[in-house]
Amino acid sequence: MKKTVARHALACTLAGILITGAAGAFERTDASAVPTAQAPGYFRMPLGRLTVTALYDGAVDIDPGLLAGASRQTIRSSLAQAFLPTAAPVQTAVNAFLVDTGDNRILVDTGTAKLFGPRLGFILDNLRAAGYRATDIDTILLTHLHPDHAGGLLAPDGSMAFPNARVFVPKTDADYWLSEAAERHARPDQRALFKMSRDAVAPYRAAGRLTLFEAGQPLPGGVSAITAPGHTPGHTAYLFPSGEGDLLVWGDIIHNAAVQFPHPKVSIEFDSDRQQAVATRHQLLSYAGKRGVWVASAHIPFPGIGRVGVDKPSVYRWVPAEYR
Amino acid sequence: MKKTVARHALACTLAGILITGAAGAFERTDASAVPTAQAPGYFRMPLGRLTVTALYDGAVDIDPGLLAGASRQTIRSSLAQAFLPTAAPVQTAVNAFLVDTGDNRILVDTGTAKLFGPRLGFILDNLRAAGYRATDIDTILLTHLHPDHAGGLLAPDGSMAFPNARVFVPKTDADYWLSEAAERHARPDQRALFKMSRDAVAPYRAAGRLTLFEAGQPLPGGVSAITAPGHTPGHTAYLFPSGEGDLLVWGDIIHNAAVQFPHPKVSIEFDSDRQQAVATRHQLLSYAGKRGVWVASAHIPFPGIGRVGVDKPSVYRWVPAEYR
Repeated sequence: MKKTVARHALACTLAGILITGAAGAFERTDASAVPTAQAPGYFRMPLGRLTVTALYDGAVDIDPGLLAGASRQTIRSSLAQAFLPTAAPVQTAVNAFLVDTGDNRILVDTGTAKLFGPRLGFILDNLRAAGYRATDIDTILLTHLHPDHAGGLLAPDGSMAFPNARVFVPKTDADYWLSEAAERHARPDQRALFKMSRDAVAPYRAAGRLTLFEAGQPLPGGVSAITAPGHTPGHTAYLFPSGEGDLLVWGDIIHNAAVQFPHPKVSIEFDSDRQQAVATRHQLLSYAGKRGVWVASAHIPFPGIGRVGVDKPSVYRWVPAEYR
Repeated sequence: MKKTVARHALACTLAGILITGAAGAFERTDASAVPTAQAPGYFRMPLGRLTVTALYDGAVDIDPGLLAGASRQTIRSSLAQAFLPTAAPVQTAVNAFLVDTGDNRILVDTGTAKLFGPRLGFILDNLRAAGYRATDIDTILLTHLHPDHAGGLLAPDGSMAFPNARVFVPKTDADYWLSEAAERHARPDQRALFKMSRDAVAPYRAAGRLTLFEAGQPLPGGVSAITAPGHTPGHTAYLFPSGEGDLLVWGDIIHNAAVQFPHPKVSIEFDSDRQQAVATRHQLLSYAGKRGVWVASAHIPFPGIGRVGVDKPSVYRWVPAEYR
């Protein structure tokens, strides 16, 4: 059988040359030359006057044992229903979102750069694949200062990866993550995050391109900032009016879609204030579910754009955007 | 504001030239130059010894009034839960699937070519984007002879789009769709399909590359054919063993995921035999749900690869594959 297959493959290739005349027609004679590259990690969605592009940074593996707030059985059951491992790390996407208003190119979050290893750090590659250059970005809005959102501000040499951008950071988050006093009082497992935050914004601050904003301060592109604390002290969601429904880019409201949509009371170890994070999740899920707004979410499977279905009070469902 | 933005955009572009030195750096000075292209319509999934590539042909709009078998209220409610229109056409993907075994490149279904207008017919483009040429395909398995599955067999000039492929068609389907007697007795709305079927296979038949196969006859790549009648008389699913779980490419078992997973008794106007189609859907959903096999589905939102969750007896849920 193996020999028959090999002869057949050869015949195919010879016919291929005769018909196509293409250079490199012999590439496929080697049965091992199976194309394996994934499609580029961007996803485009026009929305009214906006063009939204989800950008894939990569994925981290997160131990589901870090989820708490429901019984282990409830958490395991939700994971199993989504065919996810219940006792091994769960692949968790890291997404950023570019919103092009025509006047502004606004990037919400920036991925990890290479802080978290070779499986992540692909925002710049995917931005280029999507038809943009880093120099096209004029505005960066950070949902918070964690390194998987702010790390991508830096080029490999520590300079600004987005040299034409003004970076907007919620002042409450900056007051915490850029503070050396806060670092000294932080939980040991969180201390390393402070230096990463300071490093990420440093060249923008030096260039006069960093804005720490407070509630009510106007942002570019008609965007509204929505205070969404708990995951971090100043965690913020951004609401983009499109003329045909709003887009809510909500950062880390969800870390595990399979568990936290049906059980919003489940929080994750990384939350600064779990009780506040749960209250904020309930609020934003309720808001998104009632209004049917489009949601862009950092850690929901790529592209992380979708809407929130309401099954019953406090029980939600993720409805991903359809490719078109 | 508008003027400020324009000046800013110019400054960005000038900086872009200085930094990148790229040709065409002025393209972005025009605020209307918003990149709008979607990411290429392929999706790669390694599975054991297989490399599976979903290929997007495009989308058709299907009137949800063509769904029947549950109350209008039930159907409308399921559509609304998925944020789909309840009284207007629903975007319905057309997917084909390439399974590369290392020895064989097996394409299951071929899309529409240009039979259904400019929104479809992109299988060959997406095949190339995925790193394959049409001449690389050695085997084509058709789930059935409808034109959105067989139409892509033809190049625009009517010749073989896949000149090195042997085309396998379930004999029961060929006995019907290639028969002039059957055409004369068919429902008026289905008559046009017969000529499309005959045209699609004609050059392969003329070249001795058409195989009409019967149950039990061996297929390339260790694939098993699973008789799955109802949608058409000879509708067939294909089971690919991977060494790490099976892949079931099941054709038109589902036309509307939002409605038919929770309500498998709902069938669609296009089914040749609705009662049989419902029975087959129950069988394959039960099989896929119990075994947790990967499923590749022609009309589920692209990429159309996922698994079947079982909520309770005869109530199912689609769990899409995650991008990685």
